[in-house]
Amino acid sequence: MEITLTRINEDVLFEGVTPEGLAVKIDGSDGIGGTGAGPRPMQVFLMSMSACSSIDVVTILKKMRQEITTFEVHVKGDRVDTVPKVFHTITLHFKIGGDVKEEKARQAIEMSLTKYCSVSKMLMEAIDVNYELTIL
Amino acid sequence: MEITLTRINEDVLFEGVTPEGLAVKIDGSDGIGGTGAGPRPMQVFLMSMSACSSIDVVTILKKMRQEITTFEVHVKGDRVDTVPKVFHTITLHFKIGGDVKEEKARQAIEMSLTKYCSVSKMLMEAIDVNYELTIL
Repeated sequence: MEITLTRINEDVLFEGVTPEGLAVKIDGSDGIGGTGAGPRPMQVFLMSMSACSSIDVVTILKKMRQEITTFEVHVKGDRVDTVPKVFHTITLHFKIGGDVKEEKARQAIEMSLTKYCSVSKMLMEAIDVNYELTIL
Repeated sequence: MEITLTRINEDVLFEGVTPEGLAVKIDGSDGIGGTGAGPRPMQVFLMSMSACSSIDVVTILKKMRQEITTFEVHVKGDRVDTVPKVFHTITLHFKIGGDVKEEKARQAIEMSLTKYCSVSKMLMEAIDVNYELTIL
């Protein structure tokens, strides 16, 4: 798997592009020249991780014949105070609407986080990944 | 740090949004209903990690008074064959144009990867992160 990342201004604004031409802008903090033209790398990391897990959860719930109408995740990453400011805790709050049994949803989320989601599985064990679930 | 991720079609297309309203689309593979409307989570992970490191490298090289004119990174992630298909090796090939001393660039890249880049520092030690450098 490959991507190309290119600096697209004189400061710290970058654009990642896939071989298919799909592009994502990523910017640095304003203290080092960021202009708010894209999310920060650690925000993009949270998007990647939550999308990875959500794709699993939707796919597993479909196989379980649960009818999802809406699917949203509020993702929070708490960082340590010293550089490198890694996350020590990541919390995924899944808010799923539709005819979905809570027990099945919990099963799907746990299967994703412990077995299937490649992004989560690459993290150091010291990082605490937990979740909350609301069925709407 | 927070983001919200929302499913925006009937399949596995999601959109991550920051509190400032910056949005990134992320899609699943075509085998599970993906439509190629966004990069895949693992591609987005590579963007996040390479941007995190590149922001460091540009910032460090500026402090070293090196004149960067162009900055591009080719990022390759090699995955294991079994699920979860985590990366076992990630290679960042930095291509930096300008009046930049190779030694200074190596120093900046190594400082980022070993000390500063939060995304790299969250990875399991088993994942081999290495780099190549071309000064243009």
